[in-house]
Amino acid sequence: MTDAFRFPVTVRYLEVDAQNVVFNSWYLAWFDEAMAAFLADRGLPYKQMLEAGHDVQLVRSEIDWRSGVGWGDEITVAVSTARLGRTSFVLDFDVLRDEEITCGGRTTYVVIATDGSGTREIPPMLADALGAPMPLRPL
Amino acid sequence: MTDAFRFPVTVRYLEVDAQNVVFNSWYLAWFDEAMAAFLADRGLPYKQMLEAGHDVQLVRSEIDWRSGVGWGDEITVAVSTARLGRTSFVLDFDVLRDEEITCGGRTTYVVIATDGSGTREIPPMLADALGAPMPLRPL
Amino acid sequence: MTDAFRFPVTVRYLEVDAQNVVFNSWYLAWFDEAMAAFLADRGLPYKQMLEAGHDVQLVRSEIDWRSGVGWGDEITVAVSTARLGRTSFVLDFDVLRDEEITCGGRTTYVVIATDGSGTREIPPMLADALGAPMPLRPL
Amino acid sequence: MTDAFRFPVTVRYLEVDAQNVVFNSWYLAWFDEAMAAFLADRGLPYKQMLEAGHDVQLVRSEIDWRSGVGWGDEITVAVSTARLGRTSFVLDFDVLRDEEITCGGRTTYVVIATDGSGTREIPPMLADALGAPMPLRPL
Repeated sequence: MTDAFRFPVTVRYLEVDAQNVVFNSWYLAWFDEAMAAFLADRGLPYKQMLEAGHDVQLVRSEIDWRSGVGWGDEITVAVSTARLGRTSFVLDFDVLRDEEITCGGRTTYVVIATDGSGTREIPPMLADALGAPMPLRPL
Repeated sequence: MTDAFRFPVTVRYLEVDAQNVVFNSWYLAWFDEAMAAFLADRGLPYKQMLEAGHDVQLVRSEIDWRSGVGWGDEITVAVSTARLGRTSFVLDFDVLRDEEITCGGRTTYVVIATDGSGTREIPPMLADALGAPMPLRPL
Repeated sequence: MTDAFRFPVTVRYLEVDAQNVVFNSWYLAWFDEAMAAFLADRGLPYKQMLEAGHDVQLVRSEIDWRSGVGWGDEITVAVSTARLGRTSFVLDFDVLRDEEITCGGRTTYVVIATDGSGTREIPPMLADALGAPMPLRPL
Repeated sequence: MTDAFRFPVTVRYLEVDAQNVVFNSWYLAWFDEAMAAFLADRGLPYKQMLEAGHDVQLVRSEIDWRSGVGWGDEITVAVSTARLGRTSFVLDFDVLRDEEITCGGRTTYVVIATDGSGTREIPPMLADALGAPMPLRPL
């Protein structure tokens, strides 16, 4: 995981709940931001993909929490392509506090056309950005 | 205020922060929901307004907090038309825990066309739903 | 699934994103609300559990989306106990628009002590409320 | 305003609603983050204030929107101390897209003790960080 792309997250005060840790739903918000940053880092700004007529849609998510993170913690989200299929792809995420993995996530996306005509095959621009799969944990 | 429309709010666990009270931004979320419910209660479901080509846009909000509300508190949001202009209107909100006013809000909206052509005068269907102004506090 | 507990959800305007469907993270917010309502419906208001010194913590979530839901859709979240272990339990969720299952969720919780002393076995009050497992889909 | 502290904001995809602009409630989330960053920039990390027994609570907010901001827009939030009283203080915010002010905010806070004993006078550490008032618009 050492070489995975890392997206820094600043925990917002509002994301922390009365248990004093980040409420679970915000992890999906972070993963979404980290996904777009990951693609941009690999040469595909999300807007460029949209302009080319492609969008992605989440069809599955899995999250495993080992420990909570709090306000003021230094957090990064590591992102890696885990699987690249014909019409769908999978990303892996690790939420790190310093070097401790506090949470692992895996999300599956399909590609859809922005004109509303439904799913399509992964376009070359997206396949290039996703690159060779390097899952963060066994598939 | 006794006769104002009342919209029940169930505080979500995630809306409560580490201070153990609802974080301030969620009040604007509640006001938005309460606004749509208020119009529906007065005969104008929001979708009907959209289908007729009208939408509303928030241009100003003011909120005054007297005390916080917590998870599990029984909350209602009272809504009343405070002012009805030619191109804008004002709604007043009271956030009530039982009969205690914990927070007062005032929001100003303009009407916009759904076709992107900009602001327009308040259409009769909306003016009818808003009714005669009865501000919850002095304008 | 016909007999599962059902929790009504009103989609908030802010939950809908530029794709015109509810953004994925809000499903976890709904599941959290539905979980508390489910326990209350089965005789265990969440506050009563907290006062007895028990709290629950999410350790895993899985969500599968079949289709999106939009603002104004009539949504219910069906909830059922899927597994009841010694220290953890699993809930199943179906997000229904009318009678169509648009999304399925499964969440795993552990019980923790409110005094910060860590995880503990599922207390009888919670086991009683969870009842006999009836998963909404194969485990 | 040129010299005001500026806090960069990355608009999250989920913050954009079906009108394709950021939903109003997220501005309060941004102001909260910008406030903490402003104090830290002026020598008072929020955690240090909490450890010293002080916290702040929002008692009033005003927001005026001139135009919406969208996903991918480059946004900064300018922050300035607008008023410094004995027990309360006021911050001004400008939301900028490039150099265009799209929105102005003003928030009033009181200082509370973290031990639950209520409001107190503004402590010197906070007054020092707030500095001499320089409102972004007339009070």
